[in-house]
Amino acid sequence: MLRPPQRILMAPGPSNLHPRVIQALIAPLTGHKDPYFLGILEETAALLRQVFETRNRATFALPTSGGGGMEAALVNPLEPGDTIVVGDAGFFAHRMVEIAQRLHNVEVVVVCGKWGSPVDNTELVEAVRKHRPKVLGVVHGETSSGAEQPFDGLSDACRETGALLVVDAVATLGGVRLPVDELGIDICYSGSQKCLSAPPGLAPVTVSDRALQAIARRRTPVPSWYLDLGLHARLWAAEHIYHHTSPVLNIFALYEALSLIVEEGLQRRLERHCLHAAALRAGLEALGLELFAHPAHRVPSVTTVLAPAGISSTAVKAALLQEFNLEIAAGLGEYADGMWRIGIMGHSAQQANVILVLSALEQILQRQGFQPRGSGAAAAEAVYRD
Amino acid sequence: MLRPPQRILMAPGPSNLHPRVIQALIAPLTGHKDPYFLGILEETAALLRQVFETRNRATFALPTSGGGGMEAALVNPLEPGDTIVVGDAGFFAHRMVEIAQRLHNVEVVVVCGKWGSPVDNTELVEAVRKHRPKVLGVVHGETSSGAEQPFDGLSDACRETGALLVVDAVATLGGVRLPVDELGIDICYSGSQKCLSAPPGLAPVTVSDRALQAIARRRTPVPSWYLDLGLHARLWAAEHIYHHTSPVLNIFALYEALSLIVEEGLQRRLERHCLHAAALRAGLEALGLELFAHPAHRVPSVTTVLAPAGISSTAVKAALLQEFNLEIAAGLGEYADGMWRIGIMGHSAQQANVILVLSALEQILQRQGFQPRGSGAAAAEAVYRD
Repeated sequence: MLRPPQRILMAPGPSNLHPRVIQALIAPLTGHKDPYFLGILEETAALLRQVFETRNRATFALPTSGGGGMEAALVNPLEPGDTIVVGDAGFFAHRMVEIAQRLHNVEVVVVCGKWGSPVDNTELVEAVRKHRPKVLGVVHGETSSGAEQPFDGLSDACRETGALLVVDAVATLGGVRLPVDELGIDICYSGSQKCLSAPPGLAPVTVSDRALQAIARRRTPVPSWYLDLGLHARLWAAEHIYHHTSPVLNIFALYEALSLIVEEGLQRRLERHCLHAAALRAGLEALGLELFAHPAHRVPSVTTVLAPAGISSTAVKAALLQEFNLEIAAGLGEYADGMWRIGIMGHSAQQANVILVLSALEQILQRQGFQPRGSGAAAAEAVYRD
Repeated sequence: MLRPPQRILMAPGPSNLHPRVIQALIAPLTGHKDPYFLGILEETAALLRQVFETRNRATFALPTSGGGGMEAALVNPLEPGDTIVVGDAGFFAHRMVEIAQRLHNVEVVVVCGKWGSPVDNTELVEAVRKHRPKVLGVVHGETSSGAEQPFDGLSDACRETGALLVVDAVATLGGVRLPVDELGIDICYSGSQKCLSAPPGLAPVTVSDRALQAIARRRTPVPSWYLDLGLHARLWAAEHIYHHTSPVLNIFALYEALSLIVEEGLQRRLERHCLHAAALRAGLEALGLELFAHPAHRVPSVTTVLAPAGISSTAVKAALLQEFNLEIAAGLGEYADGMWRIGIMGHSAQQANVILVLSALEQILQRQGFQPRGSGAAAAEAVYRD
């Protein structure tokens, strides 16, 4: 018998669903070739263009997780003999490296950064000039570290050398400013379940004409049929040429989630994410906790915070879930222990949730023997009052 | 504003959802690492084993369409230098050929059959003995033609030569008998939205230990990270090692759909599909329509029927949708015009729906100038009365 507990989702995804998105999931299921559904596909693409801030025709949602979007963004442009430069300062950037390394005869150049900071843009630009890659890949908001990557110089270097700029926006699209066209991004992908607050299962993606042309010039076929962006573009274009059975209800839910974003206004929504992130961080620091990411490069949608010495991060996380039905995330990779990651994402990004996280954390930390320095909730409240 | 029409889904997928499956979609969303969700993953795997009739540990659902399941079934075992033999007598078998042809340095041997018939098993066995492939791929129920592939000799030939038997059960799992272990199938995949009657978006898959060992012996990495079956197996195994954000609500819905199958009883469910297919076919023939697939090889879940000369199959299909909210499918490939495909799948496979299809078709054909030979509904009714 299916009886899931009702969680308050404050991990960096999935985030809670707005009631209208839940409603969309139980709209009547249509066929994937139904004219009504194809109309919704087109409207969904138009809404995605608004959220990506792009005019790219090839803007759609892949029937995959965000990780599938990452793989699509790499396997379509890269072919044997090509080089990719990846800026790697976290778990998800490293996944980009791993995916690229699986490709036949693709050289992978890694520009490393320190977890918690972005990768150095000067080093990225130098690597692009030196290696003249087909692709430069960076992660906009590194969910594992909480750092935000700036874009200074990246697009210019790519245009100078003919490289494509591929950007992971899984943790940021719809929550953190990322004007795709203005930044000169060629392929950008995200996940449905983070700042967009749709259910997990879709990877929104947008592809510039420049990238489409580069893909069209391949000498070898794209090695994946399932992730072939050209085939997906034909499905989403006016001809709607059959490729796969679309996850119709997931698309309905994404359509509704995107409609909510446009109704709220993208700019207001981005400001809302900044506000709640500021309140959360003020609260965590008031408690005496140390934030992990570099203060100048914190992405609003993900807050990384270190567990105090002697405190089991796992026990605290479990207590939040059991006592408060409140989900936050553990760290990843070598920070699996000793770090918490808290999302400020979409419908979950609410004052009530921020105050609850801080109050619950305060109680549980105290019980585990850590004496909070001050009131987290009061410090957050001060931010909201300003 | 999302206002989909309420369709009766009688195309070969998606099929209508049972009310309990719809309910599962709006169960509270949990995180993908939530202990409650991980418990449901394990129960879903156990239910899938019952429906696949297998003891394979590696039994799970990929976060893809059925086509993603196909690609996973091919890219995991095949590596450069390998050969695959594909039995090709329809649109979806041909997709197998196309996916394999994209793989670097894989030889693709095609054993062709005639649309509407299965591929000749003797020819398949000969090709396996001659080419000693890594994989023999066949489609159990060819959705494009309505033919069912028998398995005589296939598993023996594969074991003799060390090949893996890969079977597409997208149109059949949960509706047509396919005991995976008994038939010696090594990798079998399906789609959630056909005879299982869960929403589209997942590809159930099962992998034999023999196939896992063959994959483990690869000299090169699986070229796809997203479709790497080893990584999915680790996510679904007791350790639940993170790979991607599971489409949690789709899994909840699949869990409920599988529970319904087990409650109904697999054997009874398969018989139900046979009964409604027989009634539908009796009705179509009573109307004077010609069934497309070879009488000895018709798969219960998909009925293919030819439009009479002078009748626009497209106009009839559109009228069924507009007047009756009833979806049936057009043909595929060279049969895009002149053929209808009608599903007998899962929750849609009901007497009321069969009678409606026949009655509505009779009305519309008459209006288009075709004089039905007799009453389709009466002929179907006679089958039900027996």
